[in-house]
Amino acid sequence: MPLQRYKLTIAYRGTHYHGWQWQAANQYYKGPRPAEGEGIPTIQETVEKAVKEVVRHPIALVGSSRTDSGVHAKGQVAHFDTDQTQIPPAGLRRAINAALPDDIVIRDVEPMPASFDAIASTISKRYQYLIWNADERPPFFGELAWYRWQPLDAALMAEAGAQFVGERDFASFARPGHLRENTIRRVISCEVSRRREMVVIGIEGGGFLWNQIRIMVGTLVEVGMGKYSPDRISEMLAARDRRAAGPTAPPQGLYLQWVKSRRE
Amino acid sequence: MPLQRYKLTIAYRGTHYHGWQWQAANQYYKGPRPAEGEGIPTIQETVEKAVKEVVRHPIALVGSSRTDSGVHAKGQVAHFDTDQTQIPPAGLRRAINAALPDDIVIRDVEPMPASFDAIASTISKRYQYLIWNADERPPFFGELAWYRWQPLDAALMAEAGAQFVGERDFASFARPGHLRENTIRRVISCEVSRRREMVVIGIEGGGFLWNQIRIMVGTLVEVGMGKYSPDRISEMLAARDRRAAGPTAPPQGLYLQWVKSRRE
Repeated sequence: MPLQRYKLTIAYRGTHYHGWQWQAANQYYKGPRPAEGEGIPTIQETVEKAVKEVVRHPIALVGSSRTDSGVHAKGQVAHFDTDQTQIPPAGLRRAINAALPDDIVIRDVEPMPASFDAIASTISKRYQYLIWNADERPPFFGELAWYRWQPLDAALMAEAGAQFVGERDFASFARPGHLRENTIRRVISCEVSRRREMVVIGIEGGGFLWNQIRIMVGTLVEVGMGKYSPDRISEMLAARDRRAAGPTAPPQGLYLQWVKSRRE
Repeated sequence: MPLQRYKLTIAYRGTHYHGWQWQAANQYYKGPRPAEGEGIPTIQETVEKAVKEVVRHPIALVGSSRTDSGVHAKGQVAHFDTDQTQIPPAGLRRAINAALPDDIVIRDVEPMPASFDAIASTISKRYQYLIWNADERPPFFGELAWYRWQPLDAALMAEAGAQFVGERDFASFARPGHLRENTIRRVISCEVSRRREMVVIGIEGGGFLWNQIRIMVGTLVEVGMGKYSPDRISEMLAARDRRAAGPTAPPQGLYLQWVKSRRE
């Protein structure tokens, strides 16, 4: 059979995984790296293993976003190649899902031209960040949202968020050690709204620096608490210094919502 | 100080606990019983430890419902006594919550007369059961709902559920080994509704036999799948034989929603 490239759309709860891809520098992972094929170390390895069971040969999975340990996805995008299966896409989806643990689900399988690349074909990505903002902590959603009891002013946060929009230098909003020469990124939208106890932040952009979303969220939360005014954002951006921005929000509130990509 | 009785209203995610109270016969708990004071074996022990930290002496906590391993609560009720604290109720609540892990939260602390008893003062309880009924499994709610991909007819389930209402012999709907002579229980209401992917079953009653709710739910799901018609419920009740009813639904979809009790 000819080589066929497939695009996977994947949802997962990141709680029990060391991120999409194991990273030596991951600050959340405390233990030693498990031996090859042992445990459930990363989302990538777990999905690779499930696909291998179905197509009957090892595959390499390339993901659009390397989500950190504890970060979730509603629509991660990845690709792999195989010349060993004639199963139609819907059947592939069912078979891979049957081989996956409960906290990872393949939402879509799509045959793509060989020129499609989960990283290079990306046009933009949207992340969602959920903050449970109430006096009482949420016993059921502890690993699915960030709990902040201090009252947050979502309108002030929205005002601050709007200042991130555009092509900006995000050096102040990147974790040191990101190893990127170019720290200019395009934020397409940054929206903050409240639905009862939940403050929802949505950020779409062409690409993001390491921890950029979580530092943006940590900063917006300080604005929401009244620690500084929304117009401080432009000063923070101008400083080009990580110390100028707010703290890094924890991973459990973050969701890769979707990835928009070209068909080639 | 005089001895004071307190009523606690407690919410918890049962996922990481061996139920409210450790039971030798618990089928879900696989390991050996941890040594006294080690690990986080039960909700009861965990809350007792947190209260002890606050009132500075060991307390015995009596819970209204002995929820099974993996079962959650939005409003469990419990009581304890102390003559060692002058902290007002709101302060007690905050202090106990600060001493508890994230997946248990005290929603209310209320001083009660000594005649109040979390078990004996109970008028009725309501349980909720959540079924995620969609083609795609829920990666985020695996431990918070039961996943059934087979389409369920909630209207048929509601029709069947209505037949449980009244004072009935629930011998067919009790786990063998329940050790109760009297298997007659009063079900006040049994409602089934659908909210998009989620089928929600609410059952209120004066008291329930061991696994009664979960066997009722397992049976309602078979009705919803069309395995038998709603009017089979009365035959099942008449049989007074566990084998006549449907299977036992798993614990992760079950929530103790609230307990109604007399003030004495």
